[in-house]
Amino acid sequence: MDCGTEFTGYGVVEVDAASRTQRLRYLCAGAVKMSKKDPTPVRLAQVYTELAALLQLWQPEVVAIEEVFFSANAKSALKLGQVRGVAMLAAATCGMPVVEYAPLSIKSAVVGYGLAQKEQVQFMVTRLLELAETPKSPDACDALAIAICHLHTAQTLALQDAGQGAGR
Amino acid sequence: MDCGTEFTGYGVVEVDAASRTQRLRYLCAGAVKMSKKDPTPVRLAQVYTELAALLQLWQPEVVAIEEVFFSANAKSALKLGQVRGVAMLAAATCGMPVVEYAPLSIKSAVVGYGLAQKEQVQFMVTRLLELAETPKSPDACDALAIAICHLHTAQTLALQDAGQGAGR
Repeated sequence: MDCGTEFTGYGVVEVDAASRTQRLRYLCAGAVKMSKKDPTPVRLAQVYTELAALLQLWQPEVVAIEEVFFSANAKSALKLGQVRGVAMLAAATCGMPVVEYAPLSIKSAVVGYGLAQKEQVQFMVTRLLELAETPKSPDACDALAIAICHLHTAQTLALQDAGQGAGR
Repeated sequence: MDCGTEFTGYGVVEVDAASRTQRLRYLCAGAVKMSKKDPTPVRLAQVYTELAALLQLWQPEVVAIEEVFFSANAKSALKLGQVRGVAMLAAATCGMPVVEYAPLSIKSAVVGYGLAQKEQVQFMVTRLLELAETPKSPDACDALAIAICHLHTAQTLALQDAGQGAGR
């Protein structure tokens, strides 16, 4: 999930365990829009309901989100926090663990370069997931990048574990 | 409700409609503690569950919270936002409107002076609600102050409406 005060992107990716190369497979992606006219609590309830429904539908093993860094001011951080709280609550309510990745780690995992541009990330997400075209919503694309980062990291850790196990 | 990253205070107050002076009556107050050891999503889920249970139990007509001003840094604003999002969601889920009051308005409504000290607020909350002693939890006491502010404001607006109606 890529939480934002206007759009919260989401992306569901699985590892094809049957393939030797542990290919990633795209399942779905999109963005939940916060309506502008309703009061904040109602908007948060809408986001919560949509995210919880997606989690119930797709039953991910893990929910990965982006760590927040603080170039933004305190006012936008508070607003982002409100959405983030509701997103994390949706995962907790569905019994799914939440892991956080720094923006640098996400770009490194997807592009191989921590300071990559947004377009490079979009290009690599499209390529790694073998999509016909780049997802239209940049928030959905960011969410897919976070998912890829998690799966790559999980695979790396698994390989390290296997290596350590063999070396003992 | 007085949201915080460690404690979220709550207080339930009603207006005694039978009394001519529209006396306020204390119903309950307390604070929900965020456990420190659990991951954030689990902690948020605990706060959500406790607040939703309190709202279901007391069925307030309105949930009043404090507007946040930004002396705090962005990192603590994000953390506070997460708790606040979950608290507002609890109110929305229970179908209760949320109103916000600035700290200055709360102090003005309770003490009659917007820059009042914390101790003055605690003293006046204890007096206005005719409590035997000051609530032990300062967060509960702050929540009661927010509730009093709302009821005073609501009463003032009702009196103004009545006055305007009579003057027509």
